Amino acid sequence: MQVLKTLEELQEVRRSITGTIGFVPTMGALHNGHISLIKQARNENDIVIVSIFVNPTQFLPGEDLDKYPRKDEADKKICQMCKVDYVFMPEISTMYENEEVLVKAPNKSYVLEGKTRPGHFDGVLQVVLKLFNLTQPTNAYFGKKDAQQLSLIQQMVKNFFLPINIVPCDIVRESDGLAMSSRNVYLDNQQRKDALLISKSLYFAASLIGKQEFSCEAIKQKMLETMSILDVEYVAIVDREFNEIQTIQKGNTIILVVARLGQTRLLDNIWL
Amino acid sequence: MQVLKTLEELQEVRRSITGTIGFVPTMGALHNGHISLIKQARNENDIVIVSIFVNPTQFLPGEDLDKYPRKDEADKKICQMCKVDYVFMPEISTMYENEEVLVKAPNKSYVLEGKTRPGHFDGVLQVVLKLFNLTQPTNAYFGKKDAQQLSLIQQMVKNFFLPINIVPCDIVRESDGLAMSSRNVYLDNQQRKDALLISKSLYFAASLIGKQEFSCEAIKQKMLETMSILDVEYVAIVDREFNEIQTIQKGNTIILVVARLGQTRLLDNIWL
Repeated sequence: MQVLKTLEELQEVRRSITGTIGFVPTMGALHNGHISLIKQARNENDIVIVSIFVNPTQFLPGEDLDKYPRKDEADKKICQMCKVDYVFMPEISTMYENEEVLVKAPNKSYVLEGKTRPGHFDGVLQVVLKLFNLTQPTNAYFGKKDAQQLSLIQQMVKNFFLPINIVPCDIVRESDGLAMSSRNVYLDNQQRKDALLISKSLYFAASLIGKQEFSCEAIKQKMLETMSILDVEYVAIVDREFNEIQTIQKGNTIILVVARLGQTRLLDNIWL
Repeated sequence: MQVLKTLEELQEVRRSITGTIGFVPTMGALHNGHISLIKQARNENDIVIVSIFVNPTQFLPGEDLDKYPRKDEADKKICQMCKVDYVFMPEISTMYENEEVLVKAPNKSYVLEGKTRPGHFDGVLQVVLKLFNLTQPTNAYFGKKDAQQLSLIQQMVKNFFLPINIVPCDIVRESDGLAMSSRNVYLDNQQRKDALLISKSLYFAASLIGKQEFSCEAIKQKMLETMSILDVEYVAIVDREFNEIQTIQKGNTIILVVARLGQTRLLDNIWL
């Protein structure tokens, strides 16, 4: 495994590759969710490139970029164990100039995650586009956990005609159902227990589907009842393009929950 | 020569090409300026692709997209004579969806051409990025006449790490010095004669360079005197990144003029 720091190193490596490339962009602090993406990339491609870059442009003013967990050495070991070929770990100054041509997510990015973090997705798309152009992958792997991010990246690939196949990957869960997240380590024992209600409410929602009496509104109410002891920020039922829907469309529906456990904001969702 | 209309046709052709690709994006109504770009592309690449697409997103509200000259049949003949391999002529609905991920030019795009046409360059960069991703050229050819456009495209290529070589091409002029433009046909005899003062003022400016007594401000004054009978919109002296400068930097200076002859707005510039 080779660790690349500069554009020149990456570009030289890229020019030398002729086979298929699987790319997994990350902000590091790798957990089992990331490992699952990397393993899938390893299975499906000749060459695997992982990027580890805490992207400043997706943090909003007041959001603490410096507090984001950094585990470079552990991350490199994980990549090596997963038989990654190249890890790209650039400096901020390698990726950004002062005044740049920007990517602007569409207006619909300003709902749900984009509502509490306006401009966040502009920064996500900006860095993903840069990384795509540098690595020029055959396949790029993204978790369904960040569902809105995944949807916007799919839209960017479509709108910009990028010759890249986006592979949505299933959410990896603890044995009791909690979705894997770098933030789970912040939960105390009671919060860890309470957090189970999130995935429980999603499974409960899924079990209601097809029963005619339940509209999306009714399903949301049932979910909120299940999570009554939690500080729920939102429950939303959307189609794959993130338009809110009134009735479940099988094969085209995502149910999303965001809840706060103390200071920790947890996301989860289920794709129907 | 093959004329391609759909994404699928272009993408299939693109996958089949292994050699170098020269790409010339145009809005049609091809004149000698375009022909010079195409010929250079022909000389320097295995395959030449020309796009002809009147891009709606670079027209502002009130600017008349429908009045833009269209000469599809003549354009195709010109391409054939220039031994172009592929002409890409998509419909608007092929290139755009209703709500899209957008490209946003930096703030400095809102000076000069961007000042009178705010948002114009966002649309230019949007369509150029799409066309670049579809054609994936080795080299892409742009005229120095649209100097600010060229500078912003160079910046986008740099910021987005596009693996494309941008080739700036010299302005092609009539024998008396008037820069080639699709708009020259709108000039009556007197305007055609008066329009010569634009290139004349630029040559005069160039002749003053190196004479210590002339600051950029003084040069601009001299140029305005030369063009005193014209309705000059602006004279500007900038570096290659389009920052206004006070003193000429040899190898890094562009002098720009925009003037109106009746209803016709003419651009010209000189690179020092």
